[in-house]
Amino acid sequence: MLPTIAREGHVVVMIDQRKLPSKEIYVRCRTAPEVARAIKTMVIRGAPAIGVAAAYGLAIGVRGSRMTGTQRLAAEFYKLCELMAATRPTAVNLFWAIERMKRSFAAGVEAGESVDQLKDRLDREAELIHDEDVASCRAMGAHGAAVVPDEACILTHCNAGALATAGYGTALGVIRGAVEAGKRITVLADETRPFLQGARLTAWELVRDGIHTTVITDNMAGALMARGLIDIVVVGADRIAANGDTANKIGTYSVAILAREHRIPFYVAAPLSTIDLRTPDGSQIPIEERNAREVTHLGGSQLTPAGAHIRNPAFDVTPHHLIAGIITERGVFRAPFTDSLRSAFQPAITA
Amino acid sequence: MLPTIAREGHVVVMIDQRKLPSKEIYVRCRTAPEVARAIKTMVIRGAPAIGVAAAYGLAIGVRGSRMTGTQRLAAEFYKLCELMAATRPTAVNLFWAIERMKRSFAAGVEAGESVDQLKDRLDREAELIHDEDVASCRAMGAHGAAVVPDEACILTHCNAGALATAGYGTALGVIRGAVEAGKRITVLADETRPFLQGARLTAWELVRDGIHTTVITDNMAGALMARGLIDIVVVGADRIAANGDTANKIGTYSVAILAREHRIPFYVAAPLSTIDLRTPDGSQIPIEERNAREVTHLGGSQLTPAGAHIRNPAFDVTPHHLIAGIITERGVFRAPFTDSLRSAFQPAITA
Repeated sequence: MLPTIAREGHVVVMIDQRKLPSKEIYVRCRTAPEVARAIKTMVIRGAPAIGVAAAYGLAIGVRGSRMTGTQRLAAEFYKLCELMAATRPTAVNLFWAIERMKRSFAAGVEAGESVDQLKDRLDREAELIHDEDVASCRAMGAHGAAVVPDEACILTHCNAGALATAGYGTALGVIRGAVEAGKRITVLADETRPFLQGARLTAWELVRDGIHTTVITDNMAGALMARGLIDIVVVGADRIAANGDTANKIGTYSVAILAREHRIPFYVAAPLSTIDLRTPDGSQIPIEERNAREVTHLGGSQLTPAGAHIRNPAFDVTPHHLIAGIITERGVFRAPFTDSLRSAFQPAITA
Repeated sequence: MLPTIAREGHVVVMIDQRKLPSKEIYVRCRTAPEVARAIKTMVIRGAPAIGVAAAYGLAIGVRGSRMTGTQRLAAEFYKLCELMAATRPTAVNLFWAIERMKRSFAAGVEAGESVDQLKDRLDREAELIHDEDVASCRAMGAHGAAVVPDEACILTHCNAGALATAGYGTALGVIRGAVEAGKRITVLADETRPFLQGARLTAWELVRDGIHTTVITDNMAGALMARGLIDIVVVGADRIAANGDTANKIGTYSVAILAREHRIPFYVAAPLSTIDLRTPDGSQIPIEERNAREVTHLGGSQLTPAGAHIRNPAFDVTPHHLIAGIITERGVFRAPFTDSLRSAFQPAITA
């Protein structure tokens, strides 16, 4: 299992995803603001992973507090929640994890717990979010494997892998699930400019797993589809609205249009924590615009001339009608998504 | 006018397009093999520009020959033609220019010209190809300006500019023509991985001309179209088949699909020398696959992990039904292209 994020006592340890694959460097965050900064600067990225990071950040932030009264601790905790929420706007898992930590904290206060008990409770909640994420990914992999044909060439965009989650991955979890189910598959990875999550992270993960992986530049996918070389597309998600509209890494929308043009099924893989029933449709999802420097510079060298303007929207929205299915830990949901996604949150009926 | 290529006596001088925009370095080729190498390694690129380069290369190659008899000179000339033809397979302007030089040479031999006369004749033919290319671009600009709406945001892919021609440009010629016609336009330039012709060359040219230019990564165009931010697409071409199918830089096909999805007109700008009536349709156009290193490395740093496979097709084919019009020096041709393109080669009727 890849060491995306781990807690060691009062320290949150993350592999620095800006440096991969050339360097495996670990960043050690000792305070909540350090974790917030790591999320903002993309030391760690991927919707589920930043949810886990935020939870750990809050846990170590509260653990390190010198407040002796519950009320003062609460004030500090809610301030840290705000700090964490201000890091990145699009991935809903961040807000979901913060919300969950808040609910746990409120329940502890309600039960009259001491400062130490509250700290222990947040530690446990963060661990639970971490463990559940890995379990979700494995369940997604098992459900998703069923939609992948044997001998398929799977196109994926960005990195929805072990590095984007607490481990195993969402879209790459589906790929791993298909391989574990004995299917002979190959993977095409869009390099995914500007941050190159595909070239750097997806390729690194999959090559480590011995899965045949070919990196292409983002503008090659259409031409390879036209040649009949792509059988299925599987991507992750940063936020799925109630109607199935899906925000994911910039370029996903174009891949979805191209897939439909070539009659290639386009799947989204994401845990329920990425589904945001309070966002009715994709037009309501805030899209982060990141620093121009991510586009203009690469490895210290400047690509563009002075005087050129830059756009850098980090995400786009794929409308639900382009999506064949949404693969979650509870199964594969299909259109009409407004109904199927709502039903996903009903308690499971067990015998 | 940008100094894409010039002849100074026995030397062909080119600006090194691999180094722009950070460095303006000129490469001086003293022999035909040096020119061939410059074409192959993309010191100079762009279909019309490599046609001009090949012509100059042949002219200086023959000029430098020590052969004293016409027959021996012819043998050397045809060998140089083969060398030049083996540089890059897709852009037809290369073969067109070589063909034209061959025809001129044969006419000289036919007329019983001396070795010196043959050398002079090839010099003149190369100069003519150079001058005609600039004139074609300016005519294209004038014709193309008419299809660009006032206040349009124009998306272009790769570099079909002064740097891709003997000067002024094809797609960028249309943009320059629209500006000269008083239209207030802005340009979005796809960065165009892997060689970054858009980020490095198109932006550099247009910023020099004071035209408002915004660079985006290739995967952003779809999302910006969905937001209604793009009004028209204009690209160049490396080879246009008899039915209008157009080979151009990898990614052009995807842009064309996205443009149709958003009801945005998609135009190709190219001189008649790019139209290849002997190629019936796009399936017959050879597509160059270039070195993997162009994808895996950038500015000395390696982007992908060891063990990852790479694809690097340099071009794709946009089927004619996605093309609103082909802008040439003889006017804008429209569907059915099989008829309109054939008619383009009829002698002009003058009063």
